Amino acid sequence: MSSGDGKGLSRLAELRAPIEAAITRAITDITPTLTRVNTIAEDAIARLSEYAVRGKLLRGALVIVGSSMGTPGDALTRASEIDRTTFDLAASIELIQSFLLIHDDVMDRDPVRRGGPAIHEQYRLAKPEAADAAHYGFSQAISVGDVALLLALNVVASSRLDPAIRLRILELLTREVAMVGIAQMGDVAFGHASEEPSEEQILSVYRYKTGRYTIALPLMLGAISAGVPEPTVTRLSELGESLGVVFQLKDDEIGLFTDQEKSGKRAGSDIIENKRTVLRRLTFEAATPEIRARLSSIFGNPDLSRDDLAFVRTVAKIAREESSRRIDSITERCLQQIAELSGIRDAQRQLLTEIAEYNRERRA
Amino acid sequence: MSSGDGKGLSRLAELRAPIEAAITRAITDITPTLTRVNTIAEDAIARLSEYAVRGKLLRGALVIVGSSMGTPGDALTRASEIDRTTFDLAASIELIQSFLLIHDDVMDRDPVRRGGPAIHEQYRLAKPEAADAAHYGFSQAISVGDVALLLALNVVASSRLDPAIRLRILELLTREVAMVGIAQMGDVAFGHASEEPSEEQILSVYRYKTGRYTIALPLMLGAISAGVPEPTVTRLSELGESLGVVFQLKDDEIGLFTDQEKSGKRAGSDIIENKRTVLRRLTFEAATPEIRARLSSIFGNPDLSRDDLAFVRTVAKIAREESSRRIDSITERCLQQIAELSGIRDAQRQLLTEIAEYNRERRA
Repeated sequence: MSSGDGKGLSRLAELRAPIEAAITRAITDITPTLTRVNTIAEDAIARLSEYAVRGKLLRGALVIVGSSMGTPGDALTRASEIDRTTFDLAASIELIQSFLLIHDDVMDRDPVRRGGPAIHEQYRLAKPEAADAAHYGFSQAISVGDVALLLALNVVASSRLDPAIRLRILELLTREVAMVGIAQMGDVAFGHASEEPSEEQILSVYRYKTGRYTIALPLMLGAISAGVPEPTVTRLSELGESLGVVFQLKDDEIGLFTDQEKSGKRAGSDIIENKRTVLRRLTFEAATPEIRARLSSIFGNPDLSRDDLAFVRTVAKIAREESSRRIDSITERCLQQIAELSGIRDAQRQLLTEIAEYNRERRA
Repeated sequence: MSSGDGKGLSRLAELRAPIEAAITRAITDITPTLTRVNTIAEDAIARLSEYAVRGKLLRGALVIVGSSMGTPGDALTRASEIDRTTFDLAASIELIQSFLLIHDDVMDRDPVRRGGPAIHEQYRLAKPEAADAAHYGFSQAISVGDVALLLALNVVASSRLDPAIRLRILELLTREVAMVGIAQMGDVAFGHASEEPSEEQILSVYRYKTGRYTIALPLMLGAISAGVPEPTVTRLSELGESLGVVFQLKDDEIGLFTDQEKSGKRAGSDIIENKRTVLRRLTFEAATPEIRARLSSIFGNPDLSRDDLAFVRTVAKIAREESSRRIDSITERCLQQIAELSGIRDAQRQLLTEIAEYNRERRA
């Protein structure tokens, strides 16, 4: 299936260590400022540091991919040759990702993230004797998320990038992440609404809550920082938005069919939270009235038994095939766009192709 | 008492309308971007717009005061002569204030703010049928707060200020507000701790949670934007930090002794939340064991009766005098600093003096 030789992807994996180092450096740089405030700062910073590097660091890697579009040479420059400011941008988008996840987990009351306790859960566990440990956990996690966002933007503001580029990136980041916030509100509203959102409405959440900022935004940040011409930035952005929708559709599949050891998330948490996913919608659509009644009693119920999960997994198999067809169709369109993308070298075209195919195939 | 003729302060009051307009303009400018995301954006924006202009807009006015330190002429330039970018900065700090209050109110579960329902309370009331309307309200308010912060920074990034100044301000804002987040975590931790924080620890919360960002930060933003020399910016910052501590000490008094119609906040909400204020500490210190026992049963109890409030008000009178002595002592030091502040004109010295005295005397 894959038209790439996977060399680009393995090069991406090499980026993990330097991105981790950039995140740690960003947090370390601001630590003396924050520990001046009080004695609990150190603990908060330690939790954020551990959390921020616990993810896949996919968005950070995509910043490097985006920046490679503006540098000569190989498809993806070796990590040792990439400018430190590019890694700072990677750290920034990863801190934004941490901010969003920390706040999302409060809203969803999801105790597990990235294979460990969510930030609010960590604080709840640290205060078991408090009268309302859960709300204490939420409160502290809200602030940790706020600090992560502010730190992410501080990294860009104080980077050594050209001032005009820094300002352009800060304007873009604040605008795009504000859109994520609004999309998140829509997602929360759907979760509490009695009527079912249409597939188009769900896809709109995917586009703005995940699609744009997961793939389009990092690619753009990298490309802008490397001086890639505007028309190419725009096309990378459009491409990234579509790839991001696929990313979310795959995430829904992984969330239902993959166990926590592999996904880092509690299997079936979307069921517990009654998340309005495309997969959920397709599952209900394909169900008989009897099955639908049982599904209705399972979705949104905080006590999801093993049998319930197994039942949903069985019933959702047809929906999964339907969802895969959507994934294939968007991916094919993306591959076409990549083939036609002007202003980039063949090695980069190859890398984007590999990313699009990994995005379709990934299992965790 | 006042050495000023109050002309400067009345000029400050004239700033309210143009600051309100700048906030509205900032929100209006980004509205087409956000309404593209989904249909609930409009409602969220309307709530934020209404909320953001409902406050005293004190911080926004202090940006203008800070900028007046770098412009020739009167102590405070007439609103019509002030550059639009200065009002953009005022809008930015006010949106940051909204962000902080929206998140604070979630953490404190405080339903009333600025004389109306807090944002989370608005969403809770809009969804009375939801299984968990309170958590729904918290979730939506977290996002509205996030959007307010992002919008505040977007306003600066996209303003027409000199690029180097914009970057300096963005670096400063993100760093200082991150410190506020850490201070807020300390405040929340104190609220849940069994041991009492020392007065020094409480004052440290005041310094970082309120002091610096309420007065020092707006003064600095304005001064930096107007090209005020660095040593003067630093001295304004030190002065603002002390004035900000007084501001918080006054806020505690107002929160206890002023009714909601005048303060915009529920009277005694600090008692309900068992906030570790200096006033609370002094009240407990001055109390006999019997009174202390009754105070202990009142503080932190969600059902605060009228009798309870009246009791605390009576008992806290001695503490209030003690607190007033602290306010006077810090204010006197500030007045001394203002008198010695070099690099500013007399008219501006006069205005700062009036502000310091208003800060000590204010009743709401």
